[in-house]
Amino acid sequence: MNLALLLDEDFVSPDRARLQGRRLQHLKTVLKASAGDRIPVGRVNGLMGYGEVLKLNDSEAELQLTLETPPPAALPLTLILAMPRPKMFRRVLQTCASLGVKDIWLINSYKVEKSFWQTPWLSDDNLRENLTLGLEQSKDTVMPQVHIRKLFKPFVEDELPALLEGKRALVAHPGMAAPCPTHLNESAALCIGPEGGFTDYEVGKLEEAGCQSVHLGPRILRVETAVPVLVSRLFDACL
Amino acid sequence: MNLALLLDEDFVSPDRARLQGRRLQHLKTVLKASAGDRIPVGRVNGLMGYGEVLKLNDSEAELQLTLETPPPAALPLTLILAMPRPKMFRRVLQTCASLGVKDIWLINSYKVEKSFWQTPWLSDDNLRENLTLGLEQSKDTVMPQVHIRKLFKPFVEDELPALLEGKRALVAHPGMAAPCPTHLNESAALCIGPEGGFTDYEVGKLEEAGCQSVHLGPRILRVETAVPVLVSRLFDACL
Repeated sequence: MNLALLLDEDFVSPDRARLQGRRLQHLKTVLKASAGDRIPVGRVNGLMGYGEVLKLNDSEAELQLTLETPPPAALPLTLILAMPRPKMFRRVLQTCASLGVKDIWLINSYKVEKSFWQTPWLSDDNLRENLTLGLEQSKDTVMPQVHIRKLFKPFVEDELPALLEGKRALVAHPGMAAPCPTHLNESAALCIGPEGGFTDYEVGKLEEAGCQSVHLGPRILRVETAVPVLVSRLFDACL
Repeated sequence: MNLALLLDEDFVSPDRARLQGRRLQHLKTVLKASAGDRIPVGRVNGLMGYGEVLKLNDSEAELQLTLETPPPAALPLTLILAMPRPKMFRRVLQTCASLGVKDIWLINSYKVEKSFWQTPWLSDDNLRENLTLGLEQSKDTVMPQVHIRKLFKPFVEDELPALLEGKRALVAHPGMAAPCPTHLNESAALCIGPEGGFTDYEVGKLEEAGCQSVHLGPRILRVETAVPVLVSRLFDACL
């Protein structure tokens, strides 16, 4: 936690907040903060700065806030991910948030196991918690939006074309002829398949919707590795 | 496992191998292979190809091998990592192996907790197992070399200068003036600090040894995210 993200409900006045739970524990055990210390904070979807510790006890910490710095620029990326395996999903969410991805669509695919959609990590609270961890890691305040689409075909046929308008649209898929482009200067949409990849039918449907198929070299990467590799490749100037 | 990595001891003749344990289980339960099927294999530090299943039972699988394809190109990178927290270390190893990093130096740093060096994941067998998982993910055969240096100063003063010779040498550190370069056409050495970063003293010593300090933008990334982001940024043409 390189920044404590303050939620609206943490504010007791416009420049004062109280922390409990995980963030309080972090202040006490990792930062070993005490009254008078300044710790880096940010208001969710707002400015960043520091909070001076006014008091800190076993139940809460109270901070006097000075918030003047805008968060780092968001990546101009719509990330469309086949729903990952649950044990990987949390890390993928945190990674996306830490990289500045703000628009995440979780979609179905033939090789997404039905059980993946049952994971408790998809609850609103758990999504928010893991995205918060990513923002706190990278010192950002802007909460990513996560959209869940459990049916592939209606999403790709009815929603995706509008979503891709005005964007460079790509689907990363091993074995395609074109290499993934580098350092884009435009908004992009990027589709990444599940373990085992999209099926040929699915790649065809994504192409019909406007995506270009690109490869990422001879190596087959895990989703959790492919996301930072692709984001870095597409937007090296933005990171 | 997109490829079964065959060790020397798996070979019963130059073109025949027997698999047991984890790889046998994968053949049976994930690939659901049976006699006559061809599965992708590679010989450690050698060629890749396929193995035709001759027989498969509860104790072993026997494969007739056709190995004709060279593994993908290695990254021309020496990666010097402050020893990561054990729960992250396994994934970092797998990620490095899957990205084609072949030369990994694990070093001490002020913010590396002493307990990190006690992890069983540093045993030869466990290092090899996790590197194997990364190679099998990305379809590569060339086992990375891991060097362990538990003392920072002797490593940086006595070994590092020679290690950096002829290479573009970088230390990634938040807040430095120069941005990390992109698409290098030369060999590189890259130092990445622990959670919380190298100390100023350590950055100074790395600079004395020949490293240039570079930043990676305003975001502070976890080591497991920084590795693929930096590798992708430095070597986008090699991935």
